[in-house]
Amino acid sequence: MIKPQAISWFWENLPEAQIIEDKFKEIIRKNYSLSGFTPIDTPVVERLDVLLAKWADDNEVYAIHRVNGEVGDDSSLWLRFDLTVPLARYVAQYEWEISFPFRRQHIARVYRWERPQKGRYREFYQADVDIIWNWDLPNFADVEVISTIYNSLRELDFWDFVINMNNKKFLSWFLQTLEIENIAWTISIIDKKDKVRYDKLKEMFFSVWLNEVQIEKIVEFIRFSEEKTNTEILTFYSQFSNELLKTWIDELKYLYNNLINLWVEEKYLKINTSISRWLNYYTWTVFETFIVWAENLGSVSSGGRYDNLASNFTKNNYPWVWGSIGLSRLIAVLNSIWKIELDRKTVSKAMLVNMWENTLKNNLSILNILRNAWVSCEMYLDSETKIQKQLKYANNKKIQYAIICWLDELEKWVLQLKNLDSGEQLEIKQSEILNYIK
Amino acid sequence: MIKPQAISWFWENLPEAQIIEDKFKEIIRKNYSLSGFTPIDTPVVERLDVLLAKWADDNEVYAIHRVNGEVGDDSSLWLRFDLTVPLARYVAQYEWEISFPFRRQHIARVYRWERPQKGRYREFYQADVDIIWNWDLPNFADVEVISTIYNSLRELDFWDFVINMNNKKFLSWFLQTLEIENIAWTISIIDKKDKVRYDKLKEMFFSVWLNEVQIEKIVEFIRFSEEKTNTEILTFYSQFSNELLKTWIDELKYLYNNLINLWVEEKYLKINTSISRWLNYYTWTVFETFIVWAENLGSVSSGGRYDNLASNFTKNNYPWVWGSIGLSRLIAVLNSIWKIELDRKTVSKAMLVNMWENTLKNNLSILNILRNAWVSCEMYLDSETKIQKQLKYANNKKIQYAIICWLDELEKWVLQLKNLDSGEQLEIKQSEILNYIK
Repeated sequence: MIKPQAISWFWENLPEAQIIEDKFKEIIRKNYSLSGFTPIDTPVVERLDVLLAKWADDNEVYAIHRVNGEVGDDSSLWLRFDLTVPLARYVAQYEWEISFPFRRQHIARVYRWERPQKGRYREFYQADVDIIWNWDLPNFADVEVISTIYNSLRELDFWDFVINMNNKKFLSWFLQTLEIENIAWTISIIDKKDKVRYDKLKEMFFSVWLNEVQIEKIVEFIRFSEEKTNTEILTFYSQFSNELLKTWIDELKYLYNNLINLWVEEKYLKINTSISRWLNYYTWTVFETFIVWAENLGSVSSGGRYDNLASNFTKNNYPWVWGSIGLSRLIAVLNSIWKIELDRKTVSKAMLVNMWENTLKNNLSILNILRNAWVSCEMYLDSETKIQKQLKYANNKKIQYAIICWLDELEKWVLQLKNLDSGEQLEIKQSEILNYIK
Repeated sequence: MIKPQAISWFWENLPEAQIIEDKFKEIIRKNYSLSGFTPIDTPVVERLDVLLAKWADDNEVYAIHRVNGEVGDDSSLWLRFDLTVPLARYVAQYEWEISFPFRRQHIARVYRWERPQKGRYREFYQADVDIIWNWDLPNFADVEVISTIYNSLRELDFWDFVINMNNKKFLSWFLQTLEIENIAWTISIIDKKDKVRYDKLKEMFFSVWLNEVQIEKIVEFIRFSEEKTNTEILTFYSQFSNELLKTWIDELKYLYNNLINLWVEEKYLKINTSISRWLNYYTWTVFETFIVWAENLGSVSSGGRYDNLASNFTKNNYPWVWGSIGLSRLIAVLNSIWKIELDRKTVSKAMLVNMWENTLKNNLSILNILRNAWVSCEMYLDSETKIQKQLKYANNKKIQYAIICWLDELEKWVLQLKNLDSGEQLEIKQSEILNYIK
């Protein structure tokens, strides 16, 4: 006898939690599709050389091998650690088959060996949208990515979130005006500002040779962005005469205004001039999304723009903008602040009581009528089980309706319909069942 | 520069094929859900000891390891080779949390190292439905599994298939009446009957010590089942007085009649007394589904009943009935007989032409109106591109509608709507757009 054990740090749901996760996935997928992002589903494995092209820390990567083969069989296949490297490989491989601009979505699991940490798993879902072009990628692409993420999060519907947006060139410009030399390191410290105390932050700045005045200015810059409204920030930086700055502020304004034109509500957007997302990688728009009251649990959705997605695989240039909802992370965060309520344990909306062989044929017709009308339903499997036990099963799984076709009412074409949520009980005509269950 | 290469025998789709595969998945998932099968999504990896409990041939299995770790790190995790072993582990692990009968579905990829073969991949999709009980599992469960598979295949809609059903005890009984000793081997030979020529089959029977008379009877038995109608077969075997045989025929009748009661069309069902699905494993109902004109390409959907799903993991008894559509196999078979027509390259149903900054705000409202009405759409990303080139992009991706908001018609709230499928072109009021695109 083998003990059936879950694998540590690989998440799995009981049915009631799976139903919630699936609902999330479905809403995200629907919104991604409505914005014209076509699903693509690359294999879960990629070749070693493909993944290595982009990834520095191979401590976090899983490889696969045949159990009775040599390690390294199948030309060293690795499990994907994100959905972007496979996308880069895909775009380069099919560059003559794909028509650009290419809008794609991918909602799938990725794999990372990580030290155990709350809310982190070694297998987790990402939900990405990407726009890639073989040409100059217009700023409207960034608008589309962020509005699509916004639509998805809004429809998930039960919490407040804020999308923090920045133009990364803008942050670099500001640091240059302070005559800071080590811009990349400084940005990586600013990136940690929400995670460490102020004195610790200051210490980190000192460690990269910033002086008191520079640190003061950076802190002021961060606070300004935190305290002022979007319009105040855009207005303030518009007054400088620096030509490049003007361009960047115009880009940020374009992004912001067109999100509003796409009916994004202002309170969900925050221009945050200190958002950076790591160093060097992103070149323009960057965004991070936090759940109000759970900011310290980290970003649940992020993205940005990169000049050249597939440079390791092709000499052609593919500018790219990307957004991602960290689906597993999002659910973990919502769980930790008690925002997820488990409800039903089954997709069935109705259960037919199964008692008398003579009503079987009639019951099966009812099942079919409901299913054809897209109502999920089942009949209790066993006709020998007492009616109370059958109803208990339905109650336990939180099935909303129980339907009883009594033997002596069969000829009257009458059914008893119990709403197990409300306790309501009705006698209805069989032909009218779809008026009651929908 | 790294050459972007696909991995041999790991399938991946271009967008137009992915859209078809996703449509298949969605239809199957919908039909599984309508019959009350709740989705479950176990990790792609399982522990070595869990997988070994059921699997004999570990030559076909992939394991994973950390790239810089030891082989065997993470207590030897293996990629699942089917969805059943993880289900058995899951049922045993959560036996006190699940309420039974447990109806679940799982549409996901599995991994098998196999020698290259047409229509076989090392990563492929299975779509399973399962019913498990901690009690006697009534025959109605078998009806539900087969009717659900039937509903899914019918909605896929563009080919003819036949579900071949049998009661496996029936086949064993017949072989016993011939005084055959090596029943398991004989069954495994009968299982190959569609794949080998008659003289080869005879040779195989000889090799397990069957005599001419026995072989003659078996061939007659197979032919009878092939040539007679369902009713003729059931009637013929009903006339014997053997009590056990009576029971089995009654079970098979129950299955058949209630499928008909669930409006399954008779021509899609075939009682086939020589269907067995390997040896020993299945104990009662078994079925295999073939596509008409492509029988030699193998079964695209199969299943059966097993007395005890989780015997390796728990002392409690879980009878189980199962059905599966081999989604990747099905698509490969349909492709090989030219039954899959690639069509659209994007989920977008409409594209707005993007030309004038002054119409931008109006265009974005139209985008939003369409998306809120669940019409997938996009605006061409770049406003500098000539209208002909924008329409060429829409044509190329087979987007059905192009919408043009001319600058000089902006004030009249009029749009030009081109149906790129039909060539039709209309001038419509902006407020009526949803009457035209739906």
